[in-house]
Amino acid sequence: MSTAVETPVSEIARSAKAASRVLAALPTAARDEALEAIAAALEANSTAIHAANAADVAAAEPLVLAGELSQSLFQRLLLSPEKLRVMIEGVRAVRQLPDPSGRILARTLLAEGLTLEKITVPLGVLAVIFEARPDAITQITALAIKSGNAVILKGGREVEHTMHALLDTIHAALATTRVPTGAVSGVYGREAVQTLLNLNHLIDLVIPRGSNALVQHIQRNTIIPVLGHADGVCHIFIDQSADPALINPIVVDSKTQYPAVCNAVETVLIHAAIAPAVLPSLVRALEEKSVRIRGDARTRALLPDAPIDLVSSAEWHTEYSDLILAIRIVDSLDDALDHIEQYGSHHTDAILTQDPAAAARFLAEVDSANVLHNCSTRFSDGFRYGFGAEVGISTSKLHARGPVGLDGIVTYKYRLTGAGHIVHDYTGPNALPYLHQPLKLD
Amino acid sequence: MSTAVETPVSEIARSAKAASRVLAALPTAARDEALEAIAAALEANSTAIHAANAADVAAAEPLVLAGELSQSLFQRLLLSPEKLRVMIEGVRAVRQLPDPSGRILARTLLAEGLTLEKITVPLGVLAVIFEARPDAITQITALAIKSGNAVILKGGREVEHTMHALLDTIHAALATTRVPTGAVSGVYGREAVQTLLNLNHLIDLVIPRGSNALVQHIQRNTIIPVLGHADGVCHIFIDQSADPALINPIVVDSKTQYPAVCNAVETVLIHAAIAPAVLPSLVRALEEKSVRIRGDARTRALLPDAPIDLVSSAEWHTEYSDLILAIRIVDSLDDALDHIEQYGSHHTDAILTQDPAAAARFLAEVDSANVLHNCSTRFSDGFRYGFGAEVGISTSKLHARGPVGLDGIVTYKYRLTGAGHIVHDYTGPNALPYLHQPLKLD
Repeated sequence: MSTAVETPVSEIARSAKAASRVLAALPTAARDEALEAIAAALEANSTAIHAANAADVAAAEPLVLAGELSQSLFQRLLLSPEKLRVMIEGVRAVRQLPDPSGRILARTLLAEGLTLEKITVPLGVLAVIFEARPDAITQITALAIKSGNAVILKGGREVEHTMHALLDTIHAALATTRVPTGAVSGVYGREAVQTLLNLNHLIDLVIPRGSNALVQHIQRNTIIPVLGHADGVCHIFIDQSADPALINPIVVDSKTQYPAVCNAVETVLIHAAIAPAVLPSLVRALEEKSVRIRGDARTRALLPDAPIDLVSSAEWHTEYSDLILAIRIVDSLDDALDHIEQYGSHHTDAILTQDPAAAARFLAEVDSANVLHNCSTRFSDGFRYGFGAEVGISTSKLHARGPVGLDGIVTYKYRLTGAGHIVHDYTGPNALPYLHQPLKLD
Repeated sequence: MSTAVETPVSEIARSAKAASRVLAALPTAARDEALEAIAAALEANSTAIHAANAADVAAAEPLVLAGELSQSLFQRLLLSPEKLRVMIEGVRAVRQLPDPSGRILARTLLAEGLTLEKITVPLGVLAVIFEARPDAITQITALAIKSGNAVILKGGREVEHTMHALLDTIHAALATTRVPTGAVSGVYGREAVQTLLNLNHLIDLVIPRGSNALVQHIQRNTIIPVLGHADGVCHIFIDQSADPALINPIVVDSKTQYPAVCNAVETVLIHAAIAPAVLPSLVRALEEKSVRIRGDARTRALLPDAPIDLVSSAEWHTEYSDLILAIRIVDSLDDALDHIEQYGSHHTDAILTQDPAAAARFLAEVDSANVLHNCSTRFSDGFRYGFGAEVGISTSKLHARGPVGLDGIVTYKYRLTGAGHIVHDYTGPNALPYLHQPLKLD
């Protein structure tokens, strides 16, 4: 690698922690200035960045030919001038977003002269573990600095030269600002991952970006909170009162608009009362889009001549991430709810119905981050939701759930300001009164 | 025990999960009615409840005499008529609180006809592990039902008869309401704890209420999120610009008003510039309240004749939970910040100063759930903060932090309602526009 001596990961994490304390006290303007400095430096340094990327690409090409690196990973690794331009635009776009930290969520006069504020603050230090995307580096850096968090980046070895060039550029830019250079750092090598995952006293949140296998590995190997989701086993339930005109477009869009992503549908549940009428046309529409169907016995019985493989019950848990769709006939909304509870991943589930009572029950009782009515599962996404940026998608119920924007990488603290107040004066027979009076936010 | 055959813990958890799905769909009024039914049943059944408590007390008395059960635990176990009355009042008080679930946090028109709502929803199933307090049973039950969560209670064996009587009463009350009886259940015996901690697919949050040892044991033995804090190592920093008149009352109150609790101060840091002037009087004030002082070398040098034991550096981590206070002289605000970062537990830390800049830095840079200025650490508490109820205090940064009210046992989901919307129509050259227009909340 380009650096002769690597700093130990724990040392880097301690610097990140120290930087996070400086960041937490910086005003919004100082962090925004740092983002503009980074954007400008990326523009000024584009030749060196492209040269570094060319080295990564040259190293990757034989791996692709040998079948050791997938074409799609190779494509993501390639940093075209256009892609770099979009990355720089992305940094400036994050700069324009509202600051998620320093927001007063509540203000209460607890007692005469004693004021409580609940204020959002950065989490501290983020560790982001990703694969071969150069664009992830600038995007995560921008999100971290915007929110006042320090970040440690661990990218795949395929992207190492590019990452060094991008981080050198970012560090040179930060050196001219009030944001410490320790606020953004990179670690390299597979062993670095487990070292990071052990540093629970220094790292506040781990964000894995990559395959299910990566996310699961990380969730199982750290006590640090992990923001992410391992599976996206999403369902559409076609209720007996579904509008037939909506069924094919929504199912086809949910499956085929981008089959590899987590909010693509994997299983369609069809109410038995409507299945004979809608199934043949739905299967035709899916087959036209090259979707292979895996059906339960009742689905196959309704279409004995269609090429539908029998689905095994273990398979209801499967995230195909491909042009494959499982179909099951169910007898009721309750059966659909039970199926989703048993086999779903609490990510995104949709009902198609014109019956408001059925829709209301589905939206209330399905315990998923995103519950949808009469629209495509593909809408459950931070950008489509209008968050301006997406940090990740969470299927955890605690903290951030669903698509996570900048709000997901801040926490809050309580600030209490008095003038010598002691609890003793508010207890006993002559206790002063608590007021608990909500005060106006600015 | 009174029940001949115990239902297996996993069976109880499955019933709780099923009940949680029913609860999630019930309106506020149905849950409030259940709380009133419980309050009324507790009144009607008080004779049986007191008889059951008498059995627990009779079983505990020899243990107290044998020194196997502490007096304080025994006192908590005792259920006087007055205590039961307060417990019943507590259930009715929780009923009066605003419903934390079903609140629309945001509403956005994503595109023409496509509306996104972010709505609070119950977490699902809570497991609460506590010691010998009968009052915890009714309070936790009330908080759970109010927020739409099912709850599994595991109390210490000392309280088993009382717990059976209270749960029988609660179940009889629930049977007359729309809340399923499975929404509240009890498990018994030490093995039940580990069984609960393994049921991560059924239980959404574990709330330990008890000793540090209990909390730490639970945190180390489950992948279910735990709401709580192991340590409360709280600090007061007496800045060089502190108002001398505030120092003694605030330190004495923070240490002695209730020394056994987590928000009592354990370490006082004194700026070297003010220490000679304020230390003698502070130590006298503490000694008058029978507080034993443990000091660093500089503290002892300032008061060579005072009975101050030398504090070891490992001890800075200690939560005394007793009338013992550590004192350290520091040279600057920065040194105080470093000490708190290194030894604190991120619970509650206070600064005494008349210097607004020092206060601002302390409140921004101390990474604790509660940061206080010129008031007693004992104020960091859900009731004093005006939450109406306290579920616990969290030193985790994710999800709920600090004193946690009903808001801490709900999460949110995204509800998206369309009329056949598909993502395909919002991409490509003729893409329909996203609007991302915030809509009014009701």
